[in-house]
Amino acid sequence: MHGVKTYSETLVLNTRSRVELNDLSDRVEKVVAASGVRNGVVNVFSMHTTLGLYLNENESNLKRDVLEFLERLAPEARGYHHDTIDPTANTFSHLRSILLSPVITLPVENGKTVRGTWQSIIAAEFDGPRTRKILVQVLGE
Amino acid sequence: MHGVKTYSETLVLNTRSRVELNDLSDRVEKVVAASGVRNGVVNVFSMHTTLGLYLNENESNLKRDVLEFLERLAPEARGYHHDTIDPTANTFSHLRSILLSPVITLPVENGKTVRGTWQSIIAAEFDGPRTRKILVQVLGE
Amino acid sequence: MHGVKTYSETLVLNTRSRVELNDLSDRVEKVVAASGVRNGVVNVFSMHTTLGLYLNENESNLKRDVLEFLERLAPEARGYHHDTIDPTANTFSHLRSILLSPVITLPVENGKTVRGTWQSIIAAEFDGPRTRKILVQVLGE
Repeated sequence: MHGVKTYSETLVLNTRSRVELNDLSDRVEKVVAASGVRNGVVNVFSMHTTLGLYLNENESNLKRDVLEFLERLAPEARGYHHDTIDPTANTFSHLRSILLSPVITLPVENGKTVRGTWQSIIAAEFDGPRTRKILVQVLGE
Repeated sequence: MHGVKTYSETLVLNTRSRVELNDLSDRVEKVVAASGVRNGVVNVFSMHTTLGLYLNENESNLKRDVLEFLERLAPEARGYHHDTIDPTANTFSHLRSILLSPVITLPVENGKTVRGTWQSIIAAEFDGPRTRKILVQVLGE
Repeated sequence: MHGVKTYSETLVLNTRSRVELNDLSDRVEKVVAASGVRNGVVNVFSMHTTLGLYLNENESNLKRDVLEFLERLAPEARGYHHDTIDPTANTFSHLRSILLSPVITLPVENGKTVRGTWQSIIAAEFDGPRTRKILVQVLGE
């Protein structure tokens, strides 16, 4: 039993397209290593309402499927009520972010995230290109 | 490095419609302030299977879009199997809650939640009106 | 204010069908009891990209509705791009896992998880039968 340590860094992500998927796994792992935390959790937190996170395989065909799947559920279209307020017509970006997660919590053991073989931390940009901030917070002992 | 502190309060929410969205951000922030935790996390936890949570913009047009979006994905309709068990025909309420989250974890820094400008903590009632309980748990140093 | 304790166990789950729902609540509760943590959190974490988690009612009719709902949103079909890479045609399994969660965080108070009456921790297998690993991590005081 030890004291609790908290450590955080903000990752800056410069996206280049309206919609794109970026793998943050290596950058998150570096923050965990820098934190000195051996056992605990890491929270990967999107500071935006039009960028969501998910944990799954980083395979280019699957990423196309994910984007087509989200386009089917929440089409990039005009005609949403919110578009009358926001001229960028980014309502679909909000809806898709709500379907995904604003935060992914991963266990940390022996100074590394615990993840299955195919689990990558993916940031899903839905309203780029933009400069995005992802807070990576490590908490533990 | 300090000891770990845990603190929790249960928010009571009296909803007035079958389906409605309520912003809990200010109430959550007050619990974080009352906890005395400077750095750590807050877990906002729905104690119900027909009320979900999400983190996104509290803008009235967008909230209409969110409800219409969920109605499209999980229509308020009769004919679900579970409706034969539960005469309130609230199967759609369960399905929508599953699409959203039972818990939102937010980082806490300097005694406040870390949130982007437009990120509000929204409780989505899908089977009101009811008295609802949301556990707000703060953990940190 | 006390020190932080972390404790984890890996649950092994042998699934028997391609798609099935298993209630992990009792097994998670046992890990929480074994941890000795009185107040804190438990993270229930899927180590797979084709098995998701959700927190909702364990009622057999509702579980049929959940599976039919997910079949409607992400049909078990051929023709996805990822299927050209993975001959098991499990793209739908990835998509459904992304809609659900890889991790459920629950508050722990007085040595038990805090859950509403109907809240069960459900592991949703989408690419079985397989041997699956679920990490249950308890963190607190």
